Amino acid sequence: MSNYIDNLNWRYATKKFDISKKVSFEDLELLTQAITLSPSSYGLQPYKVLIIEDQDLRKKLQPAAWGQSQITDASHLIVLANLTNFGEELVDDHLNNVSETRGIPSENLEGYATFMKSKVVTMSDEDKATWTAKQAYIALGNLLSAAADLKIDACPMEGFDASEFNDILGLSSKNLNTAVIATIGYRSEEDETQHYKKVRKSKENLITLL
Amino acid sequence: MSNYIDNLNWRYATKKFDISKKVSFEDLELLTQAITLSPSSYGLQPYKVLIIEDQDLRKKLQPAAWGQSQITDASHLIVLANLTNFGEELVDDHLNNVSETRGIPSENLEGYATFMKSKVVTMSDEDKATWTAKQAYIALGNLLSAAADLKIDACPMEGFDASEFNDILGLSSKNLNTAVIATIGYRSEEDETQHYKKVRKSKENLITLL
Repeated sequence: MSNYIDNLNWRYATKKFDISKKVSFEDLELLTQAITLSPSSYGLQPYKVLIIEDQDLRKKLQPAAWGQSQITDASHLIVLANLTNFGEELVDDHLNNVSETRGIPSENLEGYATFMKSKVVTMSDEDKATWTAKQAYIALGNLLSAAADLKIDACPMEGFDASEFNDILGLSSKNLNTAVIATIGYRSEEDETQHYKKVRKSKENLITLL
Repeated sequence: MSNYIDNLNWRYATKKFDISKKVSFEDLELLTQAITLSPSSYGLQPYKVLIIEDQDLRKKLQPAAWGQSQITDASHLIVLANLTNFGEELVDDHLNNVSETRGIPSENLEGYATFMKSKVVTMSDEDKATWTAKQAYIALGNLLSAAADLKIDACPMEGFDASEFNDILGLSSKNLNTAVIATIGYRSEEDETQHYKKVRKSKENLITLL
């Protein structure tokens, strides 16, 4: 665990990536697993993840991300896109998966299906989108920790125009919205910010024991 | 890293805790560090964290969490409470911290202060609360991974009445709202769900490589 804390201290929001270094296929596979294993409400995983290496596409997205250099300089750009709307199929698809994975007859899950639907399908459109975005942020937190564990640098980014991202990536027609993005790769030696002392609230200021 | 993936596979949303086992002071300290080191937008950490051991308080909260047994059976209940409103002081306090931690004169940060304020202080009240809640979810994702690394079980929970939690914990008067909670401790041998196969979307269904 001291290793886990060391990794969190090692990581920082990378401002300048080394354009010559790429994340290996094996490491991408591990990050993919970490994302897939991220917890979510009821296990519904109401989001999709795009891992973008394509430079032309990243160049197209860059102006919609305030022109930030990480978009094209990083090894990969990861887009976490939350479902903006959904119906009963979100629950049904999940419970079909539960049924298959665990060998439980679907009819045994009907009560659970009704309960889950009463909780999530009845939300307003706005609440649905907020709720699914939050689930994507759990995956973001996990992704950043997983990357640090692999000594892969990352920069989580909220500085982008979601509607432009959605247009360029064709997300809106799929009821998806760019919730948050992260670039991954390896820090450039020239990135002075890697030497900055980490700034965090004091324990007293952040945490209360009761 | 295979260890990191192993930990994610090991963890599950614990339904029944062993009431006789407590998380040690040392492990709580490590979880506290992991929460503190969680990334957040601009590093603003716009939330507070309550770590609740007090049984009377947990008994009071339990009915507001659908009576779920984990609230009182777990070793500790962790409440992540996001700021529902804030003004320029959120940015100013952070930049004072940056100034002190990094030894940068405050006047050198004025441009950055103006920029940050133009991004976060100008948001609508509703957008502020949504944005701060998302930051708390990054911390949740990191907390769950950190707990798994320590082989501490956890159950992230959204099944609670936030306004009742806020009342009981006196959060509203501090512009805080219960965003999400998690119970931590050690799984009971009797919790059959620990043996269930983990259900996740297939890589093809969740992730697209471009």
